[in-house]
Amino acid sequence: MTEMFTDRLYRKAAPIWDAYLEHPFVKGIGEGWLTEEKFKHFMKQDYIYLIEYSRIMALGAAKAPDLTTMSMFANLLHETLETEMQLHREYAGRFGITEDELEAEEPAAVTTAYTSYMLNVSQIGGAENVIASVLACAWSYNHIGKILAGWPGALEHPLYGMWVEMYASDEFTKLAEDCKTLMNQAAEGRTERELKTLEDIVVKTSRFEYMFWDMAEHLETWPTEKFERER
Amino acid sequence: MTEMFTDRLYRKAAPIWDAYLEHPFVKGIGEGWLTEEKFKHFMKQDYIYLIEYSRIMALGAAKAPDLTTMSMFANLLHETLETEMQLHREYAGRFGITEDELEAEEPAAVTTAYTSYMLNVSQIGGAENVIASVLACAWSYNHIGKILAGWPGALEHPLYGMWVEMYASDEFTKLAEDCKTLMNQAAEGRTERELKTLEDIVVKTSRFEYMFWDMAEHLETWPTEKFERER
Amino acid sequence: MTEMFTDRLYRKAAPIWDAYLEHPFVKGIGEGWLTEEKFKHFMKQDYIYLIEYSRIMALGAAKAPDLTTMSMFANLLHETLETEMQLHREYAGRFGITEDELEAEEPAAVTTAYTSYMLNVSQIGGAENVIASVLACAWSYNHIGKILAGWPGALEHPLYGMWVEMYASDEFTKLAEDCKTLMNQAAEGRTERELKTLEDIVVKTSRFEYMFWDMAEHLETWPTEKFERER
Amino acid sequence: MTEMFTDRLYRKAAPIWDAYLEHPFVKGIGEGWLTEEKFKHFMKQDYIYLIEYSRIMALGAAKAPDLTTMSMFANLLHETLETEMQLHREYAGRFGITEDELEAEEPAAVTTAYTSYMLNVSQIGGAENVIASVLACAWSYNHIGKILAGWPGALEHPLYGMWVEMYASDEFTKLAEDCKTLMNQAAEGRTERELKTLEDIVVKTSRFEYMFWDMAEHLETWPTEKFERER
Repeated sequence: MTEMFTDRLYRKAAPIWDAYLEHPFVKGIGEGWLTEEKFKHFMKQDYIYLIEYSRIMALGAAKAPDLTTMSMFANLLHETLETEMQLHREYAGRFGITEDELEAEEPAAVTTAYTSYMLNVSQIGGAENVIASVLACAWSYNHIGKILAGWPGALEHPLYGMWVEMYASDEFTKLAEDCKTLMNQAAEGRTERELKTLEDIVVKTSRFEYMFWDMAEHLETWPTEKFERER
Repeated sequence: MTEMFTDRLYRKAAPIWDAYLEHPFVKGIGEGWLTEEKFKHFMKQDYIYLIEYSRIMALGAAKAPDLTTMSMFANLLHETLETEMQLHREYAGRFGITEDELEAEEPAAVTTAYTSYMLNVSQIGGAENVIASVLACAWSYNHIGKILAGWPGALEHPLYGMWVEMYASDEFTKLAEDCKTLMNQAAEGRTERELKTLEDIVVKTSRFEYMFWDMAEHLETWPTEKFERER
Repeated sequence: MTEMFTDRLYRKAAPIWDAYLEHPFVKGIGEGWLTEEKFKHFMKQDYIYLIEYSRIMALGAAKAPDLTTMSMFANLLHETLETEMQLHREYAGRFGITEDELEAEEPAAVTTAYTSYMLNVSQIGGAENVIASVLACAWSYNHIGKILAGWPGALEHPLYGMWVEMYASDEFTKLAEDCKTLMNQAAEGRTERELKTLEDIVVKTSRFEYMFWDMAEHLETWPTEKFERER
Repeated sequence: MTEMFTDRLYRKAAPIWDAYLEHPFVKGIGEGWLTEEKFKHFMKQDYIYLIEYSRIMALGAAKAPDLTTMSMFANLLHETLETEMQLHREYAGRFGITEDELEAEEPAAVTTAYTSYMLNVSQIGGAENVIASVLACAWSYNHIGKILAGWPGALEHPLYGMWVEMYASDEFTKLAEDCKTLMNQAAEGRTERELKTLEDIVVKTSRFEYMFWDMAEHLETWPTEKFERER
């Protein structure tokens, strides 16, 4: 049986994704002891991330090689803006975060870095770069969601259970699988040099995911914040 | 009362839009004597146009300065791909054009020129260029739709009545008005040099609209077609 | 011996390029009887074309997969802006066209269409699209330049001889060959679907070249000009 | 006397730029005690930075609103690729870094973040974003270069003196001034909302500059490096 391109990608990304599960932020969600303050910082930054992620899906529609791919990206975009962001706002409300607070949040260094990276490769290259850009986020969240769901009590946690459930759900699993299918289709017949470029995008976005957990854990904004505030 | 930017645009575009109503293709729709062959050529090229027009709306979402504008472009994109293109396919079916024929159609020179122009200015500039790009098509179709609807028998025509009705409808009028509102918002506080650039986009897309009617009327593809076929 | 990708492209483009040599504008240059008025219109539109062509080369540098390709595009850009455009201004001066006239010229419909097409495909796709965009112009001008140079008296013509000489020159031949080499490198290992896309770009730019000769021959601006002027 | 837009930018960026001079990496250059290992890491990452910076200048040429701006960006691009990178390679040679090592270097997280940020805003917006993107680097290097040049012995240091001299030089000062002039021209007549966007780009690039010094100081690559290596 021939190997899929996503199998190759998994081999490359797995060590990074495995490290997520050892990270105190993710472990704290799965074992239920994460402080709310950290999760709230995560929620607010993730809201900004979702807006920029939507831009990538819009670029996917703009650059799609055919009508089917265009419709798929347009649907993802529509669903994110109409459903997922509403869910996000409601879930944030449970932590006492208002919509105004979500809107007023400034992107942290890592959030700026991660979203800028995806937006740059999606604009400078063709539709295949767009697909590679969005893959790691969807796939790795589903990957760890399904693992965390197996941890004792994780799904029943009053605050974080819903988060674990969402990313372990059949619906989100389907989304991740759709992204993988799209990636395998886009990889077909490409030269090793091109595959290497796509692999590099998946590895780098996986690394930025790790840094995003880290940013949430340490309540990071920008390392220059103290100098700017002094003035 | 202060003048709106769209009032200024109208003054510039009106002579071109008025010429549409004198054009045999548009007149033939309104008076009901247009040959089906010409309208079929128009329908097939317009289907390609709609796909490229969708890309522009996707670029609008990608470049939107805020979440409200992003949602608006995402909705326009979703509606075009899910509703308008289905309507187009059904209407084309009435003329005996199959979906396969729509998919197989090659863009004519004018269709390529017009859509390339919109896609270029939308990519090379910011979101304001995207708005200027889509304005003339929505607004001028609504403009002539409402005028044609007043011509005797135009709305009752067995073949073209539905077309006139669609572009004169309240729903399409609202879409055109939304585009105008967006344009006026985007124009606020800009320098004369920038306004001139936006005006230029509206004028050029209006000219390409005229050339699109002309292309349909003369069943044009590419002027080099004969040389390519001889071989 | 394996066929180069540019051999395949030549088979597709040749019927269009051959038609250039039958076109009254090109024939009129080669046989020396073209009216100055037509050539002047061509010169002014070609000046606009060169500016937009420079943007494509800049996009090539921005999207280049490696430093060598980036330098090559940057050099082409630099040479065009520093040398070729100066030559163009001087040559235009011989026809009594001032620099102010060159700057004030408005792009005709065909010029807008052709440059928008190249700019769109160069932005929406990767570096390979940029290379395919610039190929037909460089290669076909060299192709017809070398043929015209063999026509009796063409190189000696007081007005057009210099034009023929420039495009038939060793220097310009090298430029065209460089573009072909780049195209063959970029085509390596690509799927048939991708090659078809690149071929399509070369064919469409060749068609726009033909339309550009036509625009010059008929002193075309925009078909709506008369309506706009009446007001 | 009216305030220039760059005066406003300076007020915002100054606290961050001042912090550079307190940073051990910059201080270590100025006082001459920086370890070579750290400077070598900086040199290799800076080489990657320069390549991506060149892409921004190419985008500036592609998006330039007029021929003068286009030529200016094309010249900057040409000079960077032909002169500055050669200087960089020679200077790196003094530290025993070969050209192969420069070519083989992988971008660190901060380098990827910073260059992606500039490339994204330059692509998603118009030419004014390109100018804002390149400003902080040119201006702040000149700013600290001139201050460091006044520190006792800084210009005479066998290893780092040349670096200080380069960024304090009249030539580099002129480059920084040119960038400022361009920024003030591009800011003219803009709304406060637009100026805020441009200011935000200058502030964020200034922050990334700080993080770049930090990356060099701590020999950073990616925080996930250890997990990837273990496998």
